[in-house]
Amino acid sequence: MAAKYVSINNQLFLEEDAKIGVSDLAMHRGYGIFDYLKVIDNRPIFIEDHFNRFYNSAREMYLEVMLDRAQLRKAVNELIEKNGIATSGIKLLLTGGYSEDGYKLGKPNLIISQYPLNLQEENKLDTGMKLVTYDHQRQLPHIKTIDYLMAVRLHPFMNEKGANDVLYHNTGVITECPRANFFVVIDKDIITPKSNILRGITRSKVLNFKISGYTIAEEDFSIDDLSGIKEAFITSTTQYAYPVAAIDGRIVGDGKIGPVTKQIRELLFKLTHAPH
Amino acid sequence: MAAKYVSINNQLFLEEDAKIGVSDLAMHRGYGIFDYLKVIDNRPIFIEDHFNRFYNSAREMYLEVMLDRAQLRKAVNELIEKNGIATSGIKLLLTGGYSEDGYKLGKPNLIISQYPLNLQEENKLDTGMKLVTYDHQRQLPHIKTIDYLMAVRLHPFMNEKGANDVLYHNTGVITECPRANFFVVIDKDIITPKSNILRGITRSKVLNFKISGYTIAEEDFSIDDLSGIKEAFITSTTQYAYPVAAIDGRIVGDGKIGPVTKQIRELLFKLTHAPH
Repeated sequence: MAAKYVSINNQLFLEEDAKIGVSDLAMHRGYGIFDYLKVIDNRPIFIEDHFNRFYNSAREMYLEVMLDRAQLRKAVNELIEKNGIATSGIKLLLTGGYSEDGYKLGKPNLIISQYPLNLQEENKLDTGMKLVTYDHQRQLPHIKTIDYLMAVRLHPFMNEKGANDVLYHNTGVITECPRANFFVVIDKDIITPKSNILRGITRSKVLNFKISGYTIAEEDFSIDDLSGIKEAFITSTTQYAYPVAAIDGRIVGDGKIGPVTKQIRELLFKLTHAPH
Repeated sequence: MAAKYVSINNQLFLEEDAKIGVSDLAMHRGYGIFDYLKVIDNRPIFIEDHFNRFYNSAREMYLEVMLDRAQLRKAVNELIEKNGIATSGIKLLLTGGYSEDGYKLGKPNLIISQYPLNLQEENKLDTGMKLVTYDHQRQLPHIKTIDYLMAVRLHPFMNEKGANDVLYHNTGVITECPRANFFVVIDKDIITPKSNILRGITRSKVLNFKISGYTIAEEDFSIDDLSGIKEAFITSTTQYAYPVAAIDGRIVGDGKIGPVTKQIRELLFKLTHAPH
């Protein structure tokens, strides 16, 4: 559930009153973009990176953002203050707007919601996560659109397979999870797919790390290559670097968090908790 | 614009009050299905076909429809009566519902909107339509989901190419238009793509027609095959069979409505205006 107040087009509404007219193109045509950032101790994390991507997604989808960066930052800060939740996720959602004919773009609606976030709960490491692979290529993968039709539809499939998340591949070439990027450790290389993916903010941080004795690179690899991996992990805003224990029922490494994943995870924690 | 009243979860609202909470999965994850039927002189046309597809789309996407067929029919009729618009389009929209975590399915919201329809205006035949081809495969093409992300995004491209609509192909194999099926006449064959498409209601009616001297069949064909066509037309609920004058700037036939298109168009008009 969202926090008490939600911002719609730069006005605050109580969550129960936060509504959008039924002619919005998000509802009729699944048309919209978003971004999601975390807030720790009232500090938005990597906000400039998220704003860069948000404005870029908007531009790519021909959606105008009614607020400039300074105004958007102000709106986010006001929401954090008003809701009084120190640690949270903030979602910026920009829809296709009210459409005259239910097909052509209207004036976008900008919705900012805050969600209480229990980062410790999210990051309990009792067991690594289990992934199940699925052949699907997201359309417009480089844009953070609201298209998660396949991901949501795959919930029953995922449950049936005893998996916690899906790992997409494009006819055998690994891409990403629906809401996270994917990394593997093969020999002395830390590798994440390069093509047909969304470039995650956490992913970009990891690509800039220096891990002694390892190279870190963007490179495409296939399902078959997974047989040789020593570690695997996903990266996302809420889960930092989170170990993958099994893929398609096959245990990765010894099924526990590996040394590389552990080190990257610690580096990410340090980065987000550093004084800014 | 929708008519005066809109039905949400079987309650009537004035259009300006017809709103949905911002936590609906249609807005957050582009998750929903719909159907669209026309009403002529207060008679819903092919309503059983549309209901068949609507309930099937819902089932395929794990969405429960809160009304059974008799109740849904009643809701549609009440809306027609209340709005007092004899000729219209009725849209049944079923969303993913209010989601606790913004990702998992909630209880679906059912929105029924009516739109005044000027069928004569829609079907003015001054000129056939111009199509521009585009390589894109819709995900889950057999389900009538709200995913029109690509179609809406292609508006500027379409305008730039001077086209009225897009004709999708899947790496060279023709599929469909975003909101219509596609037919060609090659020699003595009337052909419509068979694979990776939405099976339109109007399309299914055409497939059952008998046209003297011609066979009618579902069969995949490629962009290259378009060089040999004598006629092309699209089929949809509002446009019946509508002639295609040009594809990618190349004139089809003599650029005017051909005899087969004309005949099919007349058969469709007859079918929808027949006493029931």
